[in-house]
Amino acid sequence: MAHIDLGLDETQHPGITGPMRFRPETAKPLNELAEALLRGPHSMTPGERELIAAYVSGLNECRFCCASHSAFAAVQLPEGMPLVDQVKADLDAAPVTEKMRALLRIAGAVQETGRKVTTAMVEAARSEGATDIEIHDTVLIAAAFCMYNRYVDGLGTFAPDDPERYLDNAQRIVERGYVY
Amino acid sequence: MAHIDLGLDETQHPGITGPMRFRPETAKPLNELAEALLRGPHSMTPGERELIAAYVSGLNECRFCCASHSAFAAVQLPEGMPLVDQVKADLDAAPVTEKMRALLRIAGAVQETGRKVTTAMVEAARSEGATDIEIHDTVLIAAAFCMYNRYVDGLGTFAPDDPERYLDNAQRIVERGYVY
Repeated sequence: MAHIDLGLDETQHPGITGPMRFRPETAKPLNELAEALLRGPHSMTPGERELIAAYVSGLNECRFCCASHSAFAAVQLPEGMPLVDQVKADLDAAPVTEKMRALLRIAGAVQETGRKVTTAMVEAARSEGATDIEIHDTVLIAAAFCMYNRYVDGLGTFAPDDPERYLDNAQRIVERGYVY
Repeated sequence: MAHIDLGLDETQHPGITGPMRFRPETAKPLNELAEALLRGPHSMTPGERELIAAYVSGLNECRFCCASHSAFAAVQLPEGMPLVDQVKADLDAAPVTEKMRALLRIAGAVQETGRKVTTAMVEAARSEGATDIEIHDTVLIAAAFCMYNRYVDGLGTFAPDDPERYLDNAQRIVERGYVY
């Protein structure tokens, strides 16, 4: 049971979807931000950007967001869920490009606090070919998931156990996106 | 100097304003979220909501956001900057209503992690008269500033020293809001 009365069946509207129905005025910019960051025109694929979201949600131990964005990344990356699991388990050893590893390290620093991002981390990403937009968006995706994760857990929302629920949602995200 | 080339004079576009000009696609929902949370129709005044933003930004040690939202709260609260300073220095002793103190305690928990918000904290706020919308918005304001603070500091943006700069911006926020 969530900490507040969302006025709906939480098992049917788990995680962030309950509070978003409860408060459509804030749901609108929250969804538009996710759409711009994770699905807008970009040099990084939606799968790569969802991987950053999944990684940060894992660090924040937000069960609903981590399961959701892990599924969203898995269905959009050629390597699927095994790669997502490897990144979350051991970033240093995961078989990602060195550019992606450097960007994920920046995201991991942001998850702790923005002040943990160093010039050396940014230079490392840049030396692997990361652009200013890619570095900017990595920082903002990581920061945004520090918000979404706290929103979902701070209200004590329900997270399903069944992995199929998250994969069903992944298909919807791929087909319709976050704003529809 | 910010970690990326924002393509502008950072002393003229400090803190979040530089990255927002650099990336208008994400600036739009970020500003719309701030407008809905801090200035939309509400049972809590804009000053009270900016106080939550200032308090969380202080906990996150984000100099630009804390100075900005402290000024925005101060010019919109009858008690002005002395109250804002007291809340940031010692929430337990600050002369706020018990409802506001309970909501600020929830915001402080969210700043650490959403999982720190307890049923007892929520019940305490409710017993002082807080509504579900007020509790929801307190959680989301706190969560959102965990994003804005990380965005500003994760990109290494410039924060002016001169308090007058922040008070000038406060006048603009009061007159025009976050979306204009």
